[in-house]
Amino acid sequence: MVKMAAVMGGSQRLGFHFQQPKDEPRGCWAKYFRFQCLSEGNLLHKSILSNTSSAQLKTSPVPFHEGSYVHKKKAGLGLHVLSPNIMSAALSTTVELLDSWDDEYDGVIINPESLPSTANVFASSLRASLPNWKLKGKRGIWLKILLEQADLVPIAIQEGFDFHHAEPGSVMLTYWIPNDLCMLPASPSHQIGVAGFVINNKKEVLVVKEKCPCSCSGVWKLPTGYINKSEDIYAGAIREVKEETGVDTIFLEMVAFRHAHLVSFEKSDLLFVCMLKPLSYEITIDDKEIQAAKWMAVDELMGQPFYEEDHMSKKVIDVCAAAYEDRYSGFKAHQLASKFDGKLSYLYYNDSN
Amino acid sequence: MVKMAAVMGGSQRLGFHFQQPKDEPRGCWAKYFRFQCLSEGNLLHKSILSNTSSAQLKTSPVPFHEGSYVHKKKAGLGLHVLSPNIMSAALSTTVELLDSWDDEYDGVIINPESLPSTANVFASSLRASLPNWKLKGKRGIWLKILLEQADLVPIAIQEGFDFHHAEPGSVMLTYWIPNDLCMLPASPSHQIGVAGFVINNKKEVLVVKEKCPCSCSGVWKLPTGYINKSEDIYAGAIREVKEETGVDTIFLEMVAFRHAHLVSFEKSDLLFVCMLKPLSYEITIDDKEIQAAKWMAVDELMGQPFYEEDHMSKKVIDVCAAAYEDRYSGFKAHQLASKFDGKLSYLYYNDSN
Repeated sequence: MVKMAAVMGGSQRLGFHFQQPKDEPRGCWAKYFRFQCLSEGNLLHKSILSNTSSAQLKTSPVPFHEGSYVHKKKAGLGLHVLSPNIMSAALSTTVELLDSWDDEYDGVIINPESLPSTANVFASSLRASLPNWKLKGKRGIWLKILLEQADLVPIAIQEGFDFHHAEPGSVMLTYWIPNDLCMLPASPSHQIGVAGFVINNKKEVLVVKEKCPCSCSGVWKLPTGYINKSEDIYAGAIREVKEETGVDTIFLEMVAFRHAHLVSFEKSDLLFVCMLKPLSYEITIDDKEIQAAKWMAVDELMGQPFYEEDHMSKKVIDVCAAAYEDRYSGFKAHQLASKFDGKLSYLYYNDSN
Repeated sequence: MVKMAAVMGGSQRLGFHFQQPKDEPRGCWAKYFRFQCLSEGNLLHKSILSNTSSAQLKTSPVPFHEGSYVHKKKAGLGLHVLSPNIMSAALSTTVELLDSWDDEYDGVIINPESLPSTANVFASSLRASLPNWKLKGKRGIWLKILLEQADLVPIAIQEGFDFHHAEPGSVMLTYWIPNDLCMLPASPSHQIGVAGFVINNKKEVLVVKEKCPCSCSGVWKLPTGYINKSEDIYAGAIREVKEETGVDTIFLEMVAFRHAHLVSFEKSDLLFVCMLKPLSYEITIDDKEIQAAKWMAVDELMGQPFYEEDHMSKKVIDVCAAAYEDRYSGFKAHQLASKFDGKLSYLYYNDSN
């Protein structure tokens, strides 16, 4: 098998399609994003990766040629024409282009840290930059606007940008220059949950009652939660159990996962059920979110009326119990390197075969 | 096992913690989101679920009591005090509250379809609504703003809202009223990719060369892509293979998955490798994104220099080949009902044990 080399890492890293919602196109963007992460995470890389450095842009007058340039507005928002007059005006006042760098997909990433602070200057710079990027054959434009500069959002939307994704503190806007279908990748679509099945050698399962206003608040259940940013699934399960119950564990295997849609914000989520081995047994609850926690006999846990007739939960506990009794093989986590991105990632697979 | 009932469905649906990034709090929001989906998806449900109907709000003057109400601004954006004078002014002009409905977590969802169309009216209504919600003990406020009304974004931010998530056409803003830590769930964090391993009975694998500007463009690889909104993993793999190559398949099992971080927008992704059985063999490529496709001997595929020394890809093909030869068991997809949400979802587990 020395000569075996596969396609997965490559397909994901260097030839991956970011699938858009139905009827929207896809594009190959993986390398772009690696670049973007580098760029956003460490601005020192910018000058290496960029064709046009910040300094160059900062000191250059608008470099476009005379003539009229039309830039397309998104459907429903009309069509804006940048006339020669507007451009001449821009030239005469040497409007500075927005500070930006190129990506490897003929795209442009506008530097969020050096956006003009006033709306008027931003509007002028954006209007000057768009035809310039168009002339250069650029396609996707990425504009991250921080919370503190939210007044720039409607200006960019007016110029044809659309929302892409957001998180507390910032929103990402995009503009697709070509007249063909937008090939930009979709925004993140899933939350990743973890549930910890922790069982001691008395066949008692670690269960919690959550503090919440919903109807499950009186029900004993597995500790669950969402993984943190950039956290691995197995690590998230261990952390959640520790936070909610104080019990230390190690990860054994992922026994099953559920894929549910229209859960939050009409998005989807994946819940990974992880078999964890307890390293300690004393319980200390997180009283901000947990009402109570205890070790409970498997039969008692599963006999709760609330869970009767729930086929999904029944099957989950079935496989967890089978895994505990070595009658079941889930997926273990193996850290492997890919030469495509030069990084280590976890591959989950069944290594018992 | 008749009495077995488990906790997973419940933990996810009715007692699930949306895990925030490190040092941020969590809350139990699953039912909230079920409610939200109902509300957003079918506004007919609103009057059943809401304490205050649109009609009531539309015709009521501002119902708050006299006095001064302070509403907190987010850090760095100052503090706004709604003085009695401002309130009196609002009362005298009978400013209408924003049309909204309650969620089950003491939160409020503002109706995105009936936001005031002018910035001034929106600002007045928002300023009148916030102390009203505060008086009622409300906690999280959800404000979805459509692209066409982007001029309302800076107004809401100025009043203390923050970005939460976005997608083309809209952005969701949130406001956390209590003085304690925000318990709102995090925005979606992952993209879900699929790779299809399709092998015929000559032990040839269906491979593609993608049209992309990246260095993998000349490399033969598995068809890959991201799943569509609310699409199941197995279905996404079948669709991607069909779109890229024209080959019809059925899903056999998910053999492995890779979890990678800092891929796009500093977010993460999961790539599920699916074993698919071909139902047809003739290849018709999608020439918008695929340069070429063919059936290729496994050894030839894996012998490509580009994939040498790539441990991740090597292991993926190893397990795919083992699964094809019945030496490996991955996870199959089983549709199961949960009484917690009354819905069918897919549970992926190993049913060969």
